[in-house]
Amino acid sequence: MLALIAGQGRLPELLIERLQMAGSDVFVCGYADAPGNIEPDVLFCLERIGGLLRELRRRGVHEVCMAGAVQRPKLRPWRLDFATLWLLPRFLRALGKGDDGALREVITLFEENGMRVRGAHEILPELLPSPGVLTRVHPGRGDRADAARGEEIVAAMGAADIGQACVVAARQALAIEAMPGTDWMLASITGARAGLPAGGVLFKAPKPGQDRRADLPTIGPGTLRAAAGAGLRGVVIEAGGVMLLDRDEAVAVADAAGLFLWVRPKGG
Amino acid sequence: MLALIAGQGRLPELLIERLQMAGSDVFVCGYADAPGNIEPDVLFCLERIGGLLRELRRRGVHEVCMAGAVQRPKLRPWRLDFATLWLLPRFLRALGKGDDGALREVITLFEENGMRVRGAHEILPELLPSPGVLTRVHPGRGDRADAARGEEIVAAMGAADIGQACVVAARQALAIEAMPGTDWMLASITGARAGLPAGGVLFKAPKPGQDRRADLPTIGPGTLRAAAGAGLRGVVIEAGGVMLLDRDEAVAVADAAGLFLWVRPKGG
Repeated sequence: MLALIAGQGRLPELLIERLQMAGSDVFVCGYADAPGNIEPDVLFCLERIGGLLRELRRRGVHEVCMAGAVQRPKLRPWRLDFATLWLLPRFLRALGKGDDGALREVITLFEENGMRVRGAHEILPELLPSPGVLTRVHPGRGDRADAARGEEIVAAMGAADIGQACVVAARQALAIEAMPGTDWMLASITGARAGLPAGGVLFKAPKPGQDRRADLPTIGPGTLRAAAGAGLRGVVIEAGGVMLLDRDEAVAVADAAGLFLWVRPKGG
Repeated sequence: MLALIAGQGRLPELLIERLQMAGSDVFVCGYADAPGNIEPDVLFCLERIGGLLRELRRRGVHEVCMAGAVQRPKLRPWRLDFATLWLLPRFLRALGKGDDGALREVITLFEENGMRVRGAHEILPELLPSPGVLTRVHPGRGDRADAARGEEIVAAMGAADIGQACVVAARQALAIEAMPGTDWMLASITGARAGLPAGGVLFKAPKPGQDRRADLPTIGPGTLRAAAGAGLRGVVIEAGGVMLLDRDEAVAVADAAGLFLWVRPKGG
């Protein structure tokens, strides 16, 4: 049996659909603080993850998939259950790290309990489109230079375990993703382009050292809509490293807005 | 004689005042596209910098100080004068780099013309406050941890020649400075703190490899006001690396808002 640790967004329901079609048994675990839009078999919170692990072992779960957006939780000590108490020092250490450090700690925890952690893209490989331009509009020479600069920036940020995306126009960084995410970053420049270079691209890629068993970065139709709203010329994702949800709709949105969507091999 | 290449903000007028008090001859050059709030002796634009250099040599200028905020210029080829034409390949290269790369190119240009480039802080050393906490409120343990994380982030970004500032709360990057600058960054999280860790600090430092003969990063009373508006607990600048304008007013603003202002030695 596979346990799905389900966050926000469309990804959890796509995974459940596929797993059920394949005849796999799924046990759906929802975050008590942000249950998302699916019906979970059990709700849990960070403070009781020790209890959750025991429950998963008891049910014979041997695979785990973490999927969907999750807000970094606050630890509320008064909620701790007995089975989680001994994990506390590790949690505090993990919460002080960047996203990737914290995720790696959680993955290790599942593995110590005899469970294999699978990425969502292993179950839904079509979410990782092949390299190429998916839209009618293609990137020009300037856009390609902006994408190369974006790759450089995300790689540098990876050294501090931050961000997976940035906006680049005329080879200059207009915005850099931080904890609030890609939509926030695009909103921060929407309607504020006066005095800044025109056009530009959204570049998104996993951090260089990112553990790919956890969620890869994701875009979807909403990302294309927000990119158009911010006055960009297109969106560039790293081939094999960024998941594209609702591909047909995303391409339709891009085509309607005159944007390109480019699945770019690493290194150009 | 010293030529002042004057951008926006208060810094140019402070420099002129000090230089005139010291009996130095100042020749003020203003950007034609953004003349700032001082009376320049001459206006110039990037496309005619070759002509400006000739003018400065003719007047016996042997020192140059670039001070005040400057927007990265667009090159308008139809405006090029003859003396600038041969510099074109270098400009195009410089404009494709980050801020620091472009500045270094401009510094080299002055030096090749026999002029020494001096930082504003050499003329106004009191703009670089000594290490310590300048406000009534002092940073707590969590704030010190946030400042250390901020230092880590700015250092990592320096590798891609971007940003000199970030906002950190609970050791997480809430916002990272890009081309639009510190005020834009603070505005991007103002009123948008729901779901994000509370408090936090603005951390500002020069890029690790930054050429200190050009403008160092600067804060002033407006920065403290914006930090208070964004719900932060305080502002941290690297000692010796960030200029503080209108110190008394800045400290008064911070004290009134209950913020700390900490001049932190590099490395803590």
